[in-house]
Amino acid sequence: MGGSLAWALKGQVNSLMAADPDSHTRDQVRSAGLVESIVENPEEILPLSDVVILAAPVGSILELIPKIPDWHPGQAIVLDLGSTKEQICKQLEKLPSRFDVLGGHPICGQVQGGFEHANPDLFRDAIFAFSDLSNTSARCRRFGEDLAASIGAIPSWIDPIQHDYILSATSHLPYILAAALCLNTPEGSILYRGPGFESSSRLASTNRRMMFDVLNSNRHNILQQIDQFKYILEEFKDLLQQENNPKLLALMDRAAAIQKETTREVL
Amino acid sequence: MGGSLAWALKGQVNSLMAADPDSHTRDQVRSAGLVESIVENPEEILPLSDVVILAAPVGSILELIPKIPDWHPGQAIVLDLGSTKEQICKQLEKLPSRFDVLGGHPICGQVQGGFEHANPDLFRDAIFAFSDLSNTSARCRRFGEDLAASIGAIPSWIDPIQHDYILSATSHLPYILAAALCLNTPEGSILYRGPGFESSSRLASTNRRMMFDVLNSNRHNILQQIDQFKYILEEFKDLLQQENNPKLLALMDRAAAIQKETTREVL
Repeated sequence: MGGSLAWALKGQVNSLMAADPDSHTRDQVRSAGLVESIVENPEEILPLSDVVILAAPVGSILELIPKIPDWHPGQAIVLDLGSTKEQICKQLEKLPSRFDVLGGHPICGQVQGGFEHANPDLFRDAIFAFSDLSNTSARCRRFGEDLAASIGAIPSWIDPIQHDYILSATSHLPYILAAALCLNTPEGSILYRGPGFESSSRLASTNRRMMFDVLNSNRHNILQQIDQFKYILEEFKDLLQQENNPKLLALMDRAAAIQKETTREVL
Repeated sequence: MGGSLAWALKGQVNSLMAADPDSHTRDQVRSAGLVESIVENPEEILPLSDVVILAAPVGSILELIPKIPDWHPGQAIVLDLGSTKEQICKQLEKLPSRFDVLGGHPICGQVQGGFEHANPDLFRDAIFAFSDLSNTSARCRRFGEDLAASIGAIPSWIDPIQHDYILSATSHLPYILAAALCLNTPEGSILYRGPGFESSSRLASTNRRMMFDVLNSNRHNILQQIDQFKYILEEFKDLLQQENNPKLLALMDRAAAIQKETTREVL
């Protein structure tokens, strides 16, 4: 995500610097010539930055935020790109007032992490969710809108708690379903996993560390979604068992209608 | 499916004729110039056919099979393309011995039916499942293999009961999950349904009649899959609640490994 953002921003900002703990990633970024410098420790580049963007799994972002005041002596906008927002925004809100903070989450659905999958068009037409906090300035809000526009994304403002609730239904539950679907495959089924299985199971390959942090940082919402989902499965089961065809067809139609109202149609 | 097959076969067979109960579809097929003739009633073209291919929802195929002996006075290969195989193969087996019968199911995952979505490349690299029956001749088996090869598909032979069991896990359960996922979306979630939601929910738009017939003709397997699936969801829920991170990560890894072993890697 960080690599995709740097690539999408290249040529549109004065200077791009990056930090990554992985030496292989640093080598890749260096050979791609995307940034002016890439270092191991954020403290080497933070004092020079007007804008600090935290692109990492949720757990890493939560560890990085409290260190920013020690690393950066001056003023800066601090934006994160974490997949869940409640815990991160709480941390961002605790930063000293010289930091102008903003929670962010580009909803791009990239399954595979790593710089080798970086893609400057990742954000095109994607929703970029932003959460403004009690200490977010009007300037920082405008920065968010401008950033989204400059990478072709569509900004959308949302409360962090609401974000995590909605995403538990539209993103985190789908991961659990994809993983459970894979775990449910019978022996000898490989040849018979067609395009339907492929799209349904795709999210099971989501970057492990990223998804693990999502599950842990949004546990209560995800547990609720699993319970609700089991209830809907039970509804399908009952209608099938009772051979209640009119109600089964009505349920199928309702699901198809919801599937069809996509993001793009609404915008 | 019938339109896609006709298109894929065009130029490779002496003559193609088609029957469709829908006059709009007949008009479309006629203007596309894909077949020599397209009629309303199969009985008009069946007597002229060496090979009869039944491309329709499972329920329609089950209604058509017993009528074939009245419509066709001579010998013919009869192949169906239905999504479930047990009920259809039982019917095919009952046809008089002048018919050489074969169950078939190209696993292409086409969600939208109708001639407007016909695509001659639909079968390319797809598995074409075949079920040979007690009355299937060696010649008819070779016909299946040749047919698959001529449209770029990969033939795979499977027992009808095993087919329906495996497909309940790899195709029919995924439909139920996609539909239930849609039904579970909260108010105000439209903007936050990203690419992950789109791929996970895609099957909820599967052609209604086709899927309804699948659910009804494979009810016992699908009910079993729903129960097993709920058990796996419960496993995820327990591990999340207990914060059992090692076991949760192990489960995630197992799911990702299964997702990665795709059909193509195996072949």
